[in-house]
Amino acid sequence: MTDDNNFLEAVEALVFDAFGTTVDWLTTVMREVARRSHGRIQEGSSDAEDFAREWRQGYMTTNQNIAKGAEGTLNSDIMHRDILDSMLASPRWSYLSSVWNESERQDLTLIWHHLDGFSDVTEGLERLKKHKIVVTLSNGNMRLLVDMAKHANLPWDAIFPGEMFGSFKPNPKLYHGAAYHLSLPPHKIAMVAAHIWDLRAAAEVGYKTIYVPRPVEDSPEIKAQLKTKKDGGEVDLIVKSFVELAEIVEGKN
Amino acid sequence: MTDDNNFLEAVEALVFDAFGTTVDWLTTVMREVARRSHGRIQEGSSDAEDFAREWRQGYMTTNQNIAKGAEGTLNSDIMHRDILDSMLASPRWSYLSSVWNESERQDLTLIWHHLDGFSDVTEGLERLKKHKIVVTLSNGNMRLLVDMAKHANLPWDAIFPGEMFGSFKPNPKLYHGAAYHLSLPPHKIAMVAAHIWDLRAAAEVGYKTIYVPRPVEDSPEIKAQLKTKKDGGEVDLIVKSFVELAEIVEGKN
Repeated sequence: MTDDNNFLEAVEALVFDAFGTTVDWLTTVMREVARRSHGRIQEGSSDAEDFAREWRQGYMTTNQNIAKGAEGTLNSDIMHRDILDSMLASPRWSYLSSVWNESERQDLTLIWHHLDGFSDVTEGLERLKKHKIVVTLSNGNMRLLVDMAKHANLPWDAIFPGEMFGSFKPNPKLYHGAAYHLSLPPHKIAMVAAHIWDLRAAAEVGYKTIYVPRPVEDSPEIKAQLKTKKDGGEVDLIVKSFVELAEIVEGKN
Repeated sequence: MTDDNNFLEAVEALVFDAFGTTVDWLTTVMREVARRSHGRIQEGSSDAEDFAREWRQGYMTTNQNIAKGAEGTLNSDIMHRDILDSMLASPRWSYLSSVWNESERQDLTLIWHHLDGFSDVTEGLERLKKHKIVVTLSNGNMRLLVDMAKHANLPWDAIFPGEMFGSFKPNPKLYHGAAYHLSLPPHKIAMVAAHIWDLRAAAEVGYKTIYVPRPVEDSPEIKAQLKTKKDGGEVDLIVKSFVELAEIVEGKN
């Protein structure tokens, strides 16, 4: 019987998505928005969830437009702040607009720098980095990703923000740029993400692909249908956690 | 009595030079060149030292020319290899040219990825990163600096290679670029280096400056004359080691 995970032996670097794959934006943003709302939003409420999801969706949509060539800032802090201001000017959230002054809005925007990691992440990365180069390739800006790494204990070997390459995922510039800076051909790199769109874009330039399902990311339908190549699907490997990935890599080294 | 190191409280990021400040290129390159010379160069000999110094000097000169606007590769691996080939074609080292074939020359070039850290570096950085962002800003390329960090145990929060900014130190693009990616005004950043030329270029854009004398770097005359601003000199702080710097920072936090 052949081992379908032998591709990992040739892989020298693992490139991880950040938001939603490594850190849990939904739980952290829901909690912090409620806590800073001066009682206007209850912790764990649907308002807290809607607020967090709308902020995130605004960010995703803007990223995707810029990835396709639209004009816009390449700094995710500025983008997060612009989206926050637009939300607070909308009918749904206007009751909050007087709650947060300029400096509080600035602080609120920095929530995205201090997202909590999923529970498997620190251990998984510590173990993986003994065998492979582990980097994050994210649309977040450098300082955001540095703060995130310090807060959530993410021992990256290096941080590659979209801004470094002049665009955002899923623009191929980012995957090519990461391969360039790693001095590796794409087939020696595996992208690790909870988003199939990210893995598809990475595969397009020749990366191997590792899917980690996370509760908040991708629809249940996508997750149910996702299969490895061995099973007739499109990704190279599916793992439940970074620790499971570490176990597989350790078995190959 | 005022404490002249109060500037450190406002500093949020420490930006470290790599070669010669953090890692000991001379000892490592001397040793590895001798060991791989099939007996042609004795360990610890003046030939070993001359070879290492000439390779390094070629790199420094090329970097400086490119920093001033000359054409040339921005990838330090390619540069190190080109200089090696030139040396092996020169009268002084031509007796070695047949010793190393293509793949051995390639391996030899990778010595620069695996330089040993000075003995104070890992402990110092581990302690400093609890209080400040610690990054390396180096003319080495990304993969070289990633390998160096893994080999010498350098727990960087992020790695900024010259190539990321399209030039080399001491071109101001690099210091401005690092400040941009750290989202910090220059006066909240301190450059840490064993080279006064690096600190002067950093000060020029508004960084604070911390000098760490190392045996191989700068002449005895430069080191003897170097003074802090308090003593009428030009740098903000002089420390013997990264551990001494950590002690000072800890006292300020």
